Amino acid sequence: MITLASDFGEPYPAAMKGVLLSRTDAQLVDVAHNLPRQEPRTAAFWLRETLPWFPPAVHLAVIDPGVGTDRAALVVRAGESALVGPDNGVLMPAARELGEPEVFAIDPHHGEFPATGGEGSTFDGRDVFAPAVAAVHETGVDELEGLGWLSALDDPEELRFPEPDLRGREASGEVLVTDRFGNAITNIPGSLLEDRFGDEVAVNGTAVPAERSYAGVEPGHRLVTVGSHGNVELAVNVGRGDDAFGVGVGSDVTISF
Amino acid sequence: MITLASDFGEPYPAAMKGVLLSRTDAQLVDVAHNLPRQEPRTAAFWLRETLPWFPPAVHLAVIDPGVGTDRAALVVRAGESALVGPDNGVLMPAARELGEPEVFAIDPHHGEFPATGGEGSTFDGRDVFAPAVAAVHETGVDELEGLGWLSALDDPEELRFPEPDLRGREASGEVLVTDRFGNAITNIPGSLLEDRFGDEVAVNGTAVPAERSYAGVEPGHRLVTVGSHGNVELAVNVGRGDDAFGVGVGSDVTISF
Amino acid sequence: MITLASDFGEPYPAAMKGVLLSRTDAQLVDVAHNLPRQEPRTAAFWLRETLPWFPPAVHLAVIDPGVGTDRAALVVRAGESALVGPDNGVLMPAARELGEPEVFAIDPHHGEFPATGGEGSTFDGRDVFAPAVAAVHETGVDELEGLGWLSALDDPEELRFPEPDLRGREASGEVLVTDRFGNAITNIPGSLLEDRFGDEVAVNGTAVPAERSYAGVEPGHRLVTVGSHGNVELAVNVGRGDDAFGVGVGSDVTISF
Repeated sequence: MITLASDFGEPYPAAMKGVLLSRTDAQLVDVAHNLPRQEPRTAAFWLRETLPWFPPAVHLAVIDPGVGTDRAALVVRAGESALVGPDNGVLMPAARELGEPEVFAIDPHHGEFPATGGEGSTFDGRDVFAPAVAAVHETGVDELEGLGWLSALDDPEELRFPEPDLRGREASGEVLVTDRFGNAITNIPGSLLEDRFGDEVAVNGTAVPAERSYAGVEPGHRLVTVGSHGNVELAVNVGRGDDAFGVGVGSDVTISF
Repeated sequence: MITLASDFGEPYPAAMKGVLLSRTDAQLVDVAHNLPRQEPRTAAFWLRETLPWFPPAVHLAVIDPGVGTDRAALVVRAGESALVGPDNGVLMPAARELGEPEVFAIDPHHGEFPATGGEGSTFDGRDVFAPAVAAVHETGVDELEGLGWLSALDDPEELRFPEPDLRGREASGEVLVTDRFGNAITNIPGSLLEDRFGDEVAVNGTAVPAERSYAGVEPGHRLVTVGSHGNVELAVNVGRGDDAFGVGVGSDVTISF
Repeated sequence: MITLASDFGEPYPAAMKGVLLSRTDAQLVDVAHNLPRQEPRTAAFWLRETLPWFPPAVHLAVIDPGVGTDRAALVVRAGESALVGPDNGVLMPAARELGEPEVFAIDPHHGEFPATGGEGSTFDGRDVFAPAVAAVHETGVDELEGLGWLSALDDPEELRFPEPDLRGREASGEVLVTDRFGNAITNIPGSLLEDRFGDEVAVNGTAVPAERSYAGVEPGHRLVTVGSHGNVELAVNVGRGDDAFGVGVGSDVTISF
């Protein structure tokens, strides 16, 4: 199985699919192609939340503002899966969820690299990553050492989400991402709310109910809840939490209990 | 075969796909994931228009403003297919097209329910509906009675589209949905236009040509036609009917012949 | 293998998939369903850039402002593949990339045509093209002459992209399409930039660096580069080239070296 994620929208992912399907019979599954443009951090969050639900697979993720620079192109083995994409950290949080990451650099100029013949230096998704994914899938995740165009890489770019500051009856963190519904997802662990559902907490100084689900408040009203990722989420029932709380990605969030 | 519909956008559906693909080899087919947010009525219309074209399948549909409340989670058997989703009516119009609906409630706390271990009460698509879909698919639509976590439900939430008022030379109805092209789809049966193509009719008092196809009028001009769903549609050739007629979902439409 | 492209958005493509999956076990691959509305020219460009990457397949493409008129419905055989869609030129540039096009017209009223029974004249994607695609796939691209509802067509609508004007140290062309990133893709061949990477060229009179990749300039700065299609592209690193250069589809572009 091969999954695909990118910020390409349409129709660039189709060229990657064509390359893949010319080289493998693997099942292709789209994860997302409208991830925020050229934001490896947001993509890394969603990949970490999504990919662990899949059975062992080769996961392609192309969110690559550095395409055409000398940034490395990676294959990361983790557990029984592999992740393929640029060396900007986007793969790492998901890889750490899947196992102990082992990182390899792709040499697309190596004589054995299964090149596509595509022109230009602007579409590594098609010309570097897709052929690497097909080859990794056909070779098998356990056999990467046999691929001459892969070499171990010791110091990949890291990407770690900030840790919240938890002290006494206060937790300070930030908004990591917002979703389509306007839910503002923080780095504050949801376990802090476990005993407090039905009570109020203070979010940046304003009292807000803590609820197990959006519908714990009337439509249009604010709440804090624990999202599907296990983190505290600032939300509005049938509305947009980001607007109501006046927050966006990176905004400081302090919750007092 | 399993189809998936939701208002999730990206990348939440991928988590559902991961759960499904961890439990079944069924072919997955996306119906739509950008359905209007938290509008079971609009989703119900499109599911009714779309799902009957598929071969027998298990159809997942998560448009669920009541997630986390005590609304039931349903499996509806209809013909050789099953539909899985929340008890807010969204499944019912499609189910009635597919056969005589038999409704079962899911008990996700039953000891035999194939839970995912997902956290929180905000993503039943991943934690309740997807595991139910996989189990229904693997068990077989004819064998639902053997699943201990399903029990017959007599009084599901209904959702019926309003009937138009047809009297003499006038039909009064409303706009049920609009589509991406701006076509305003009414509940007035297209059969009323059958003998009148090429003539004018009055739409809310204004004369408009009735045409077999959009191209029956010049680009930018208004028309009424019969859409692919068999209903009267207010349209503009290569333009937006909703804007030109000043209508949206729920607007009254009276057509005089 | 069957690929699908359209300007339908959601959920109309699902009805086409339902028809296909009722008639064939072929693998379905989405190319794009959010192509610009009713613009066969833009779709033709993207199909030409995308479809040649696929293995032999039957390619469905429904961008069809003339639906319901007497425009023909086509099957075009090219190489080992076939393309199916309306006779407005949208299929032809991709077909010429795939081989020597042989064009057939579909007669959906022929007694042997595998009709769907769908109502109306507004959704040929479901009622004409999808059944034709399934039949072409099941019959085999080499056996189209055996299908009674196909007949050779000598004069399909053509669609050719304008040739640039190359003279001396100047190339004049136009913007063919823009992509999601705001890159403005011209009809000027990228080979003209080959010796000039790292130098400046004049774009509509203004000096701009020619770079092998977006990252050749600082974020937010303009450049010209060679896109994945082999054409000159007006771009901004991590920004929108169309806005920065003040161009859109059809804008004149003159590059002086």
